[in-house]
Amino acid sequence: MIDHRRLRVALLGAGAVGSQVAALLRKHGDELADRAGASLELVGIAVRDLDAPRETDLPKELFTTDAEQLILGADIVIELMGGIEPAKTYVLQAINSGADVVTANKALLATHGPEIFDAADQVGAQVYYEAAAAGAIPIIRPLRDSLAGDRIRRIMGIVNGTTNYILDRMDTEGADFGEVLADAQRLGYAEADPTADVEGYDAAQKAAILASLAFHTTVPLDAVHREGITAIDKAMIDSARHAGYVIKLLAVCERLTDDPQESISVRVYPALISREHPLASVHGANNAVFVEAEAAGNLMFYGAGAGGVQTASAVLGDVVSAARRHVAGGVGVGESTLANLPVVPVGRVTTRYQITLEVDDQPGVLATVAGILSDGRVSIATVEQTVIPGASTGSESETIAVARLVIGTHRAREQDLSETVDRLAASGVVERVVSVLRVEGD
Amino acid sequence: MIDHRRLRVALLGAGAVGSQVAALLRKHGDELADRAGASLELVGIAVRDLDAPRETDLPKELFTTDAEQLILGADIVIELMGGIEPAKTYVLQAINSGADVVTANKALLATHGPEIFDAADQVGAQVYYEAAAAGAIPIIRPLRDSLAGDRIRRIMGIVNGTTNYILDRMDTEGADFGEVLADAQRLGYAEADPTADVEGYDAAQKAAILASLAFHTTVPLDAVHREGITAIDKAMIDSARHAGYVIKLLAVCERLTDDPQESISVRVYPALISREHPLASVHGANNAVFVEAEAAGNLMFYGAGAGGVQTASAVLGDVVSAARRHVAGGVGVGESTLANLPVVPVGRVTTRYQITLEVDDQPGVLATVAGILSDGRVSIATVEQTVIPGASTGSESETIAVARLVIGTHRAREQDLSETVDRLAASGVVERVVSVLRVEGD
Repeated sequence: MIDHRRLRVALLGAGAVGSQVAALLRKHGDELADRAGASLELVGIAVRDLDAPRETDLPKELFTTDAEQLILGADIVIELMGGIEPAKTYVLQAINSGADVVTANKALLATHGPEIFDAADQVGAQVYYEAAAAGAIPIIRPLRDSLAGDRIRRIMGIVNGTTNYILDRMDTEGADFGEVLADAQRLGYAEADPTADVEGYDAAQKAAILASLAFHTTVPLDAVHREGITAIDKAMIDSARHAGYVIKLLAVCERLTDDPQESISVRVYPALISREHPLASVHGANNAVFVEAEAAGNLMFYGAGAGGVQTASAVLGDVVSAARRHVAGGVGVGESTLANLPVVPVGRVTTRYQITLEVDDQPGVLATVAGILSDGRVSIATVEQTVIPGASTGSESETIAVARLVIGTHRAREQDLSETVDRLAASGVVERVVSVLRVEGD
Repeated sequence: MIDHRRLRVALLGAGAVGSQVAALLRKHGDELADRAGASLELVGIAVRDLDAPRETDLPKELFTTDAEQLILGADIVIELMGGIEPAKTYVLQAINSGADVVTANKALLATHGPEIFDAADQVGAQVYYEAAAAGAIPIIRPLRDSLAGDRIRRIMGIVNGTTNYILDRMDTEGADFGEVLADAQRLGYAEADPTADVEGYDAAQKAAILASLAFHTTVPLDAVHREGITAIDKAMIDSARHAGYVIKLLAVCERLTDDPQESISVRVYPALISREHPLASVHGANNAVFVEAEAAGNLMFYGAGAGGVQTASAVLGDVVSAARRHVAGGVGVGESTLANLPVVPVGRVTTRYQITLEVDDQPGVLATVAGILSDGRVSIATVEQTVIPGASTGSESETIAVARLVIGTHRAREQDLSETVDRLAASGVVERVVSVLRVEGD
């Protein structure tokens, strides 16, 4: 082995990802040194509790509770604690002490990214975060570098493994949401408190990160429209399948070019997608990011979205990059946010919709519904009416059969659609609005 | 717009990719400047013939036949001439005059990569080549950077669009090779002389580039085993389908860990792959690269493998990267080849095989065939025997019916397999060895 320059690597956090990072750094140290052009010396691992049980057999003397001391003098600081504080304080300390930072902390970047990137710019350090979106899938460098000469039109990502696992099993096995969630919790795919996943918070953080990169714009987390999958039931899945769709929780980052002033939309919601679309065949807890670019055309990046060792791969790739930068010299390359496009509310987005209604099975009902849609600037593409056996409404003396109406629309503005659905609900002929789902991927 | 530092960009070549690069550089110049942190001034385009017809409306004064003069003083030189010379001379001149080089020239890199990278290392310049493998698909940075902390086990790539187009149409339409090739030539998917594509030379160059990156090893082009698709016929496609496979021209880069000394194999050949494998659903002229890494698990990168504007996207991404590096300062990051693993001949590779034989339909034939396989250390996984209606052999007085034997093997060493097939052919009971195909993707 060549005698390389030594770089001091500090690790903050020894959870599922952190312990794998430490183990791999030690196991493949010589190989990584040859690749990086510098030897990577793991100088310490900061944890909250020295006595907590750990899976890996790392030497006890590496552990410390004194993160601040560890950070001082490190060349590369790997932050894998998660959460906002104290992670944010430590990351800023690392930057200000001249270290490069590698982090997988999507919550931190989606919330305080600009402050952290600014701090790094000030001192010429660099922040690496390949593991913060879509786990092991290399998506940050492709967006940040490979596609930097292109204009991205749209990203559609399956970026949360837990919800994809749940929706996939509901689709393939006809299982109920609650049932599959319980299974997912038992198998470790879902947390005891599944809110961050099933309500789309995790996907929204990743969407903010991906959209910021793709559109060279700071996208604040609260500008991301977010809906979860808890309202998705078996009937919706079946109805989607019947129409040739599958339901996926999608993170959609889109450039809107209809208005004179170019803008972007960033949204997370369960949506219908054609079974022919490459994203439809992303099964289980896998992730995939589908990118539509003006010049490059359609690209897809597929792989494991989570997991300790998988995410550790992305973290170590960043560590090697940071090391190479140290060897090469020069300042860090900051984030590019000068495009500064406005992020519009979801009401201004146009997509297609599938509206499912229960209506009175009487002559003229379809005409009434069609009239309300047309008045609301929502144009109908397909209609399918089926009588629901045994269902009826009205008084005992004059019962009226109930029909199910599944309406596929052309592209409509979300604001128009939502007002129109309100008017449908208030009209005398609609018994119940069963579901309103967006159709993505045209 | 911010007042950026100016970088002088010289373009060599104005073909399908070059003219798109020039057009996009001019069209999106301000946007690219914001992203790069430097304005990118296209100072000239070197061509062989000033009067050749060009598709784009670039100003005449940009064109020159004096490439050497253009290179002098350029900060970034984009080489899109193709071929070895004079491209190689110009690239080395650019490097030695202190410029960074962006190239899509797979032939040049696969043949003279080490010399070019060494020259760049000497002066601290950098060579970017995202467009040299799999066109617009970002695969170089993922392998070079994102997966730099991981150990890649295997890459299987569909890296040639022409052959994938031909094989896909043969598979989906039952068309003949010659018929589809003629169509592909008419549509511009294949050259008038299709040798580079259909004989696997193009794929072999890309395989050498991908393997060099993946295994941190210089892989000379002549160490890549190469077979084309001209022998693939309708019967093989049908037989593959019947067994649940599809035939794809695969570039396989594999780490071999059976021997005490770790080694790699790099090979290009048509192979059977399960219809369930993600690569099986790569249709038309698209490309995809499937990567199996120790920590990251399975990843796939999918998109357009060729096309002027698509490839221009990859080139411009590299131009932005080169510009950012100029702004950041520091020397270029060289290629990492210290692992220096030996590349073994294809004979030492183990895969599964599908062997199709025509044999005499007589008692004892299967036992004889099985015996020869077993003696040759080739273990049988499946056998399917079907009598070929009407076919017969032997003399007029005693005709013998002919049966088709399709044998699926367990993993066997290519050397053993090939010797065994020779013995089968020489045995009295085998009338004809119809085909021997590898099965990849376990």
